[in-house]
Amino acid sequence: MNDKQLVAHQAAAQVKSGMLVGLGTGSTANYFIEELARRVAEDNLQVTTVSSSVVSAIKATELGLPMMAIEQVTQLDLYVDGADEVTPDLTLLKGQGADLVREKLLAKASDQFIVLVDQSKLVSQIGERFPIPVEVPAFAWRLVRLSLEQQGGRGTLRQNANKDGLAVTSHGSLVLDVEFDKGLDSKALNDLLNATPGVVEHGVFCRLASVIYIAENGQVEQRRAV
Amino acid sequence: MNDKQLVAHQAAAQVKSGMLVGLGTGSTANYFIEELARRVAEDNLQVTTVSSSVVSAIKATELGLPMMAIEQVTQLDLYVDGADEVTPDLTLLKGQGADLVREKLLAKASDQFIVLVDQSKLVSQIGERFPIPVEVPAFAWRLVRLSLEQQGGRGTLRQNANKDGLAVTSHGSLVLDVEFDKGLDSKALNDLLNATPGVVEHGVFCRLASVIYIAENGQVEQRRAV
Repeated sequence: MNDKQLVAHQAAAQVKSGMLVGLGTGSTANYFIEELARRVAEDNLQVTTVSSSVVSAIKATELGLPMMAIEQVTQLDLYVDGADEVTPDLTLLKGQGADLVREKLLAKASDQFIVLVDQSKLVSQIGERFPIPVEVPAFAWRLVRLSLEQQGGRGTLRQNANKDGLAVTSHGSLVLDVEFDKGLDSKALNDLLNATPGVVEHGVFCRLASVIYIAENGQVEQRRAV
Repeated sequence: MNDKQLVAHQAAAQVKSGMLVGLGTGSTANYFIEELARRVAEDNLQVTTVSSSVVSAIKATELGLPMMAIEQVTQLDLYVDGADEVTPDLTLLKGQGADLVREKLLAKASDQFIVLVDQSKLVSQIGERFPIPVEVPAFAWRLVRLSLEQQGGRGTLRQNANKDGLAVTSHGSLVLDVEFDKGLDSKALNDLLNATPGVVEHGVFCRLASVIYIAENGQVEQRRAV
């Protein structure tokens, strides 16, 4: 079992019958979905799921997991997803994948949000390894980029996979990938992006994670929000 | 000349040749657009405009005002628009009209934002007279409403004019009209709405107005941001 599977299986072990479980998106979240489906099939676990993206909805459907639409959800028991960066105060960077609005909605609506990472995702400040994804309506990208530039951020429009056009989110927005020269603390960065007109959503997840499962060489460490 | 025309004409008198001017939306903004067009036609004023909505773009086009697309704009000299409420600290409530994202982008990108109101728009706290419009993607409305409920806000989905469907913004979002039981100060309200996952934009305009022109019985008072 690799490290991603290891944390995914530990998270799946937390699921109890009757729970409504949010499914994240990405390679680690996929292992969680697979293990959850196995427990439903083999251990007689009764769950309902809700997906953070079309991709995870397709995977969950293929594996036969009962699912409800995000439009019907009022509260989740558990949301499980990966992250691209995790700081010491448990702020996350997410969204190199794509579907930020759904992911943050589920994270916020969940009683417990378990984040699955390996040691390599631990950083001292958000933005150390990856640019920060910022969703903007097509008509707003230039003004948002300028506004963030005045705060020290350099934004570039994300391209699609073929590099022959732009990436478009499920809500029809474009994505600015933004790099800041000097580091900002999590709260300042979160407040800045929240307060910028034209920003639909962004990849900084501040005060949303309940617990981080960190894998390293076959061991799992848990860090909880205080 | 009525009070709306009075403030609109005073704002139009501030426009100088060479300026890029943002056009607001609504009855008072319409008087501004008309007077600006008159000055262009009769006083040889040279301006370019950018519109905050399709409605004001149509009006400006009909009146022959030179216009550029918001996608091309990096900075405006002046933005002129009305407001539904103005507090003593010059926070505004806007968006009973509709196009919040464009309006806030233009307000933010403008060197000067002149707000045109009459005495009846002055309130002690945002939300005194009108609910606060909150733009949300269709899939997010229930979770956003719940999240705001937990903070004391009651949201209802805005209907379209025919009352046979929902209002949809230019970016394809729905609008939750939100009322709070107890008053929140402008900054707390702005921060709360900015920080709520799933909120695309909202009608609280905090620290954006440069000057308010307030009409009352044929007189105009100016209040400037400090």
